[in-house]
Amino acid sequence: MNKNMKVIIVGGVAGGASCAARLRRLNETAEIILVERGPYVSYANCGLPYYVGGVIEQESSLFVADERTFREQFAIDVRSHWEATQIFPDQKTIELRQVLTGETVTESYDKLVLSPGAAPIRPNLPGIDLPGIFSVRTVPDVRAIRRWLEASNTLSGLESYSGFQTVVKKRAVVVGGGFIGLEMAENLIHLGLDVTLIQRGDQILEPLDLEMARYVQRFLGEKGLHLVLNDGAAGFQKSEQGQLMVFTQSGQEYPADIVVLGIGVQPEVELAKSAGLEIGQRGGIRVDEQMHTSQPDIFAVGDAVEVKDFITREWSLVALAGPANRQGRIAADVICGRNSRYRGTQGTAIIGLFGAAAGWTGVSEKTLQRLGDKDYEKIYIYPNSHAGYYPGAKMLAIKLIFRKSDGRVIGAQALGQDGVDKRIDAFAMAIQAGFTIYDLEESELTYAPQFGGAKSPVNFAGMVAADVLRDDVSIAHWHNLPESAFLLDVRHPQELAVEQAVGVVNIPLPELRSRLDELPKDREICVVYRSGQRAYYATRILLQNGFQVRNVSGGMMAHSVFLRDETVAGTLY
Amino acid sequence: MNKNMKVIIVGGVAGGASCAARLRRLNETAEIILVERGPYVSYANCGLPYYVGGVIEQESSLFVADERTFREQFAIDVRSHWEATQIFPDQKTIELRQVLTGETVTESYDKLVLSPGAAPIRPNLPGIDLPGIFSVRTVPDVRAIRRWLEASNTLSGLESYSGFQTVVKKRAVVVGGGFIGLEMAENLIHLGLDVTLIQRGDQILEPLDLEMARYVQRFLGEKGLHLVLNDGAAGFQKSEQGQLMVFTQSGQEYPADIVVLGIGVQPEVELAKSAGLEIGQRGGIRVDEQMHTSQPDIFAVGDAVEVKDFITREWSLVALAGPANRQGRIAADVICGRNSRYRGTQGTAIIGLFGAAAGWTGVSEKTLQRLGDKDYEKIYIYPNSHAGYYPGAKMLAIKLIFRKSDGRVIGAQALGQDGVDKRIDAFAMAIQAGFTIYDLEESELTYAPQFGGAKSPVNFAGMVAADVLRDDVSIAHWHNLPESAFLLDVRHPQELAVEQAVGVVNIPLPELRSRLDELPKDREICVVYRSGQRAYYATRILLQNGFQVRNVSGGMMAHSVFLRDETVAGTLY
Repeated sequence: MNKNMKVIIVGGVAGGASCAARLRRLNETAEIILVERGPYVSYANCGLPYYVGGVIEQESSLFVADERTFREQFAIDVRSHWEATQIFPDQKTIELRQVLTGETVTESYDKLVLSPGAAPIRPNLPGIDLPGIFSVRTVPDVRAIRRWLEASNTLSGLESYSGFQTVVKKRAVVVGGGFIGLEMAENLIHLGLDVTLIQRGDQILEPLDLEMARYVQRFLGEKGLHLVLNDGAAGFQKSEQGQLMVFTQSGQEYPADIVVLGIGVQPEVELAKSAGLEIGQRGGIRVDEQMHTSQPDIFAVGDAVEVKDFITREWSLVALAGPANRQGRIAADVICGRNSRYRGTQGTAIIGLFGAAAGWTGVSEKTLQRLGDKDYEKIYIYPNSHAGYYPGAKMLAIKLIFRKSDGRVIGAQALGQDGVDKRIDAFAMAIQAGFTIYDLEESELTYAPQFGGAKSPVNFAGMVAADVLRDDVSIAHWHNLPESAFLLDVRHPQELAVEQAVGVVNIPLPELRSRLDELPKDREICVVYRSGQRAYYATRILLQNGFQVRNVSGGMMAHSVFLRDETVAGTLY
Repeated sequence: MNKNMKVIIVGGVAGGASCAARLRRLNETAEIILVERGPYVSYANCGLPYYVGGVIEQESSLFVADERTFREQFAIDVRSHWEATQIFPDQKTIELRQVLTGETVTESYDKLVLSPGAAPIRPNLPGIDLPGIFSVRTVPDVRAIRRWLEASNTLSGLESYSGFQTVVKKRAVVVGGGFIGLEMAENLIHLGLDVTLIQRGDQILEPLDLEMARYVQRFLGEKGLHLVLNDGAAGFQKSEQGQLMVFTQSGQEYPADIVVLGIGVQPEVELAKSAGLEIGQRGGIRVDEQMHTSQPDIFAVGDAVEVKDFITREWSLVALAGPANRQGRIAADVICGRNSRYRGTQGTAIIGLFGAAAGWTGVSEKTLQRLGDKDYEKIYIYPNSHAGYYPGAKMLAIKLIFRKSDGRVIGAQALGQDGVDKRIDAFAMAIQAGFTIYDLEESELTYAPQFGGAKSPVNFAGMVAADVLRDDVSIAHWHNLPESAFLLDVRHPQELAVEQAVGVVNIPLPELRSRLDELPKDREICVVYRSGQRAYYATRILLQNGFQVRNVSGGMMAHSVFLRDETVAGTLY
């Protein structure tokens, strides 16, 4: 390690800031310059929507470590309001421009780290630059949104409204149903706005499988969100009264007092491209496991790089703070001569919405389908978040995806109002460990009535999956039931009155053993209960009595999200 | 598998009930008899204290699955109010006695499963059988406690008190500071009683290391518990006024309107002993990995058996519902000809107290010391439960224990008011996986501002530990600081005014680089910050400038629990 090396880091948020701090800890004498185009380094970009909503009250809370901290604690030369305009890899120099004054300087470097992040996509649509249309990336962005909301009296409950009994809600249109779009929608609803969210595809939260996303969609609908699927923004106009109008591809018009774009992000790679760095098929900077780009002495980290998916080994783009931080550390390690390696990204993520959460880790079923990978099975379970006898237990919806060949856990998705994070974390550890479903059966997790069950949902997922792979039970799924199947619902008749699938025959579980003669031996029987667990008991009874039988995974809880008929509603939330 | 075998299970709660249900699922035609001495099978014994406190309002909530469910769903012959009085292994018969009528029958069995549990210890002390002294094991136990509290107007806030302004609080003495003792203490405080807890040893929650238990003790003190350590109950008396009095070994007297014994449990092994089954050194029934006892065709599961500790491979007694359930399943599997094996018990556990929690998994430091095992290091960290910029983050205290030789994670203890369960679960998965601290650094866990940090506490624990094993930093601990150490506190002077260790020299971190000449080169410097993280930054600066330096793990947060001087209080809660 060259003790006196000069390292320039471009981009001062998650990946860049982590890299800078780690570098200093490893090398006290290096010259470290942290270049940030915006006014702030190391701010909490994941907190921005909550500052808009007022959940985070003080703007100052958003600053994780300020420039002064970097200077004083880490002796890092922070240059905010400077942007990198060009790299000369052969000379090992970089041109920097002060964005306020236009001044430029050229700095030499021994090592260069690029952490430019990913920029919100702003499609080139008519009217996209009208006032009142916002993206959400930086502190100034959300400051502008807050000002707009306040200035235009967009917030319900403002004092200026206090004399009136009938306040017409101001309207927001959010374009895009990913993290930022949904978090902004929630926060705008908290502020009292009437929010419509327009999503181009057939579901929100693209990393989730469709049927799981539908639970979230239904829940958001109950919270007042107007969700428009399969449509996209086509353009924007401002009326003579100053009212914004959003036009969609399907020809609809939505009036709006504010529009928030959350369409997605794309890696900022112009600088990297101009320096001749290799760009991958997904549009991100190509790096190796040690975060080297195609140019020696230039590293890249964070949202702008392509990473290997931990399961599929595909190149992918992941815009998450955790991986960015780890990559920043690894680049610093490697610069200081260490042999650290990035292991790939599992895609573990979570979003909190109205007190509930949706989380996932590993691979989704849709990704497996896209890859033509058929070596998997899935199960759905709906356990309580903690012991049912202790007050406050909430139902979780969990989808577990595992290898049919060897039982390895490869993906999990979970939804609910309590304990989603905990279960996804456990599944994430399991995937990292290469665990099988049989290992999940044996996991020894915390249990007290407030926190879980004697069989945790993680154990339970393992047991249900293992029952399938051990051939103790065959399962069927609503979306591919055999045409000829005999559908047997073993719930109590009262429960069927609330919701039932079309064409089922009902024999309550306690009567099953005495009514076997009512069942066909020449057709496959598919058994349904509320969530599948007791269907499994029924399935075991029938199997051992010589019937061909399968358990419909997820039972009635899964029914309503697989079959589009929303009149048969499940009750997850 | 003998399709028509006859299996008798003795004990109808966690292990026995799980075994019975699993047996039926695997074998539809076996004859299964479930014998339970008490009136109820499959009740929620972990919920009992919360029923006393009224958190669980209905007694019926305590019944997980009733006798009828076992009969109807599982076709199991449930015999409550029957106890097993003798086993004749050679004849493969068992004698059963109806506890209400005294009727006896002898049943033959093909396989016998013992799940007798563990009984609360009731030491043979003077007055132990006085009315008003209770143990907590069964539904009738807690029903009796509730009746006693109601009948003796022990509950504050009863309507009969409503006319009076000054209500003298009724008093409870709880003997024993384990799960039951502490949960009962919390619930009695909730009911308005003045509670004194007497604990024989120098700490509550014996599985925790002493310094971690002290945080809990301080917190419970803030919640109003009077904790008496290093003392034990010596006897009980009733005064002429009907007042109970608890006498202790140290000669103290504590008046009480109710006394709850939570001294611990001991395996119920009389039946097993009389049948000649092997009993281990710890006093539990000895079983192999497949839950066979020393007699062919007799299995044992649950609190009454000794299990192998997952880390130390020692035989141990673990009275927890999760392991009991898994053992019940395994016994059923093996009876049905499957090759299931119990992998040992990690000792993962958690207790919720006044909205906070204490959890642990794996081995404690005190166990390692008892075994003379010196191949370990430990670190203390105090991270936020979620991103500090989002409201509601609470500080966690985490102790991580790992192998010095190879970095393997072998134990974790965590305390706090939010997210303890989640982190202990992640550490439990890590221990199950044989993960090292380097694996923890790379774990990819859920992050959103409400749920965690870009570096989760699990990652952070791994990083801090890895810094130690990579020799990036040496650590010291308060309880074994070198005598000659130069104690350097790098906090801001204002912070020192709140709390400081004796004999420290203060140089604030931002000034450190410019004041190196004030530090000795010939003595080891031990650096302190609030929780250790920034002491690590200082340590790195000093190390690279040629000083001998160590970071005091846990900093001031650990100070107050290692040094007995309670006037220097930390602020975990």
